[in-house]
Amino acid sequence: MVGTRKAIKTAALLILSLGLAMPASAEPVQLLNAKDFSEIRIGGDVFESELENGMKVVVVPDHRAPVVTHMVWYKVGAADEPPGESGIAHFLEHLMFKGTKNAPEGEFSRVISEVGGRENAFTSQDYTAYFQRVAKEHLETMMRYEADRMENLVLTDEQVAPERDVVLQERAQRTDRRPSARLGETLDQMLYPNHPYGVPVIGWESEIKQLNLEDAIAFYDRYYTPNNAILIVAGDVSPEEVMGAAERTYGKVARRAEPGERVRPAVQILPGNRTVTMEDPQVAQPTLQEAWLVPSYNSDTEAEAAAIDVLADILGGGTNSRLYRKLAVEDQLATEVGSYYRSTALDSGEFRIYGIPKDPANFELLEREIRAVIADLITNGVTEEEVARSQRSMLASTIYAQDDQGTMARIFGTALTTGSSVAEVQEWPQSIAAVTPEDVQRVAAKYLEGPSIRAYLLPPQRETAENTVTQ
Amino acid sequence: MVGTRKAIKTAALLILSLGLAMPASAEPVQLLNAKDFSEIRIGGDVFESELENGMKVVVVPDHRAPVVTHMVWYKVGAADEPPGESGIAHFLEHLMFKGTKNAPEGEFSRVISEVGGRENAFTSQDYTAYFQRVAKEHLETMMRYEADRMENLVLTDEQVAPERDVVLQERAQRTDRRPSARLGETLDQMLYPNHPYGVPVIGWESEIKQLNLEDAIAFYDRYYTPNNAILIVAGDVSPEEVMGAAERTYGKVARRAEPGERVRPAVQILPGNRTVTMEDPQVAQPTLQEAWLVPSYNSDTEAEAAAIDVLADILGGGTNSRLYRKLAVEDQLATEVGSYYRSTALDSGEFRIYGIPKDPANFELLEREIRAVIADLITNGVTEEEVARSQRSMLASTIYAQDDQGTMARIFGTALTTGSSVAEVQEWPQSIAAVTPEDVQRVAAKYLEGPSIRAYLLPPQRETAENTVTQ
Repeated sequence: MVGTRKAIKTAALLILSLGLAMPASAEPVQLLNAKDFSEIRIGGDVFESELENGMKVVVVPDHRAPVVTHMVWYKVGAADEPPGESGIAHFLEHLMFKGTKNAPEGEFSRVISEVGGRENAFTSQDYTAYFQRVAKEHLETMMRYEADRMENLVLTDEQVAPERDVVLQERAQRTDRRPSARLGETLDQMLYPNHPYGVPVIGWESEIKQLNLEDAIAFYDRYYTPNNAILIVAGDVSPEEVMGAAERTYGKVARRAEPGERVRPAVQILPGNRTVTMEDPQVAQPTLQEAWLVPSYNSDTEAEAAAIDVLADILGGGTNSRLYRKLAVEDQLATEVGSYYRSTALDSGEFRIYGIPKDPANFELLEREIRAVIADLITNGVTEEEVARSQRSMLASTIYAQDDQGTMARIFGTALTTGSSVAEVQEWPQSIAAVTPEDVQRVAAKYLEGPSIRAYLLPPQRETAENTVTQ
Repeated sequence: MVGTRKAIKTAALLILSLGLAMPASAEPVQLLNAKDFSEIRIGGDVFESELENGMKVVVVPDHRAPVVTHMVWYKVGAADEPPGESGIAHFLEHLMFKGTKNAPEGEFSRVISEVGGRENAFTSQDYTAYFQRVAKEHLETMMRYEADRMENLVLTDEQVAPERDVVLQERAQRTDRRPSARLGETLDQMLYPNHPYGVPVIGWESEIKQLNLEDAIAFYDRYYTPNNAILIVAGDVSPEEVMGAAERTYGKVARRAEPGERVRPAVQILPGNRTVTMEDPQVAQPTLQEAWLVPSYNSDTEAEAAAIDVLADILGGGTNSRLYRKLAVEDQLATEVGSYYRSTALDSGEFRIYGIPKDPANFELLEREIRAVIADLITNGVTEEEVARSQRSMLASTIYAQDDQGTMARIFGTALTTGSSVAEVQEWPQSIAAVTPEDVQRVAAKYLEGPSIRAYLLPPQRETAENTVTQ
């Protein structure tokens, strides 16, 4: 499974998107006040340790039901791939289900299924993760199988070639046949002219076709070593239980490589705006997007990330946001309009806006109106009340997020594989609480007036005119 | 000096662009007939050999004046750079003028200047070359200095840092301050989503800033070895004289590395058309371009390159072409309009069209009319007469090209560093002569109906409207 970057790259985004699912005036928002910010620590009493072979262990308590979410995160993703081998991280993720020298293909999945559990895996630019959710008594069994495939994967050419076809099919269906996905790829490519975030996680078709057993094994041997892995267990277990089981399973896996520092090219922001347009007969509703490179929580050398987070919420985070209220509710111009911040990444973050007009004829008008809303925010700033409401709303979302142990495990896994610490995740509410209206206005002016990429997805525009001319 | 890819990448293009400088009905075109194609061998009696250390030697005779053009070509260019070090090939080219352990900075250039010679150097995606033009008696002196800097370059941090600033300045002036150059970079980037041809030869600013002495020396040590170099001498010398002097100079340079095969990612052609637009207040005349990936002479597995060459000439090569006659002469719509084929590259070639309307208001009309001309060519093909005229015109251009020994040296250097042989260059007229009208129509249909990137450079379009909304 390839996680779209939108969906899985961002821990804070995860929180916010859960928030968006709430009714606009949900009760918890009302119940929170400033004091609450200093009390909330995301994840509660999170335990951290490390095995002797360098594998990190994180335990997030959740004792409401006798289940656990067991995840192993590798600090490697598509952005760590060798040039010309795009897709190898995701391809290896598929191949990790092909069996080991101890467990033939299918055995691990059958065991999970027999105990009523579920499993999955995902690959992003910065990490690859595997997880199962099972009743607590099966945790050590999961660990034993997961530890086994960390070092004993067995692959044959007979398995690799058909699986490559599966991935090619996945790419064809999810990207090449979907204009919006193709445009998304191009937008990423233009945002990152020299950086691997411009390369799709699933890979370029021409390169996927050339991936082979040797590439997969080389990638596995370099990166799937315990000192490059993080175990995250969320659920109804104590740190002692987890550490005991981890030592008996993962603790026996030899440290077999030193993956080295994750050094990537510095992100290049090119001067000037660029617009990319894709027209396609499949497009029924025209959509517009605009994207700016901004710091991520990890690359945030000037402590701006929290202010950008609040900005994204005030400007376009949900139905209470300025964009939505003005353009969808008041003016009835847009069916969808908003902004979001991809905040969790090893390298650059992104700020994006998007809009879909109710009437396609109003496409340009909607774009101008969106710009007017942004220009007004930059010129006149935001109010204390708006900041306070967004802070409360974002915090309420984190409270909701804690209801789902899978989400909590994922927030910590994402953060720890993109340069953040457990403490930074836990203290995120305090960072958000410290943001002032001036901070929001400053980051809006600093970034949203800078170079951007605009992407338009349109139905064919000139067919009639062309026919007229060529007949 | 960074050669723009348009200007220096393509030997056949060089020939054609010289051809374009001719009056449209210049006499040689009339004088040529079919027989001539079988007689012309580009460069005449070209001599080829190799020194014991693996350095290739090519001598192109030209005895009309007692001068020689002396070039050393390295089979390395920007597309061979390590990830994150874009610009290192060009930066090293600059640093090659910083002196050696035998000749302090400036000595070589002073000697050239004292004997009335001239010199330069250039870097492209696929090669880096150094040349001098001097009276024949100074040839061996040039060789001695050039051989010296092939192995004895001395660099200090004191030289490297200011030279990096020179390159940054060059980039700022030639690219970042010129909207057309910025758009050109973006067009290249979109044409080559996963291939180094999408990276500018001069490098990305953020990466140029990080280039250092160690990077430069590592690149020099790996690639500037005689077995990766080609000596090309065109002029009033015999092969024996050249070989004698080459053995006394280059022959003493030790083979100090094996650069290995030039393996790059397979070029990825994405489905669907993409349009990139750049608006800038500096733009006075709107321009449009469209680019398709097509085979180069080297990647031409289906023997289509010669037909594409003829297509580019018939469609848009000069004032007799279909596009120019129809849109510039008859309809008076365009001030410039045409097509060209970047045919000489180690990897993919490109087919491009371009247009500038006389009246900016006719931008969209011009684009539709260009498409109509292309659609007509695809549907109805080209005539025997058109093919014959283009063949004669292209051949006449090669005859003109032979008038300039520097151009001849460059044609062979370009070909030999991009996978072609001396014989292939020499027999190019016969390849062109074999092209039929059906060949031209077939490659037009095959490639020009496929995915393309369109690039528009426009003055600001919506300023008034935006002001209206935001006031």
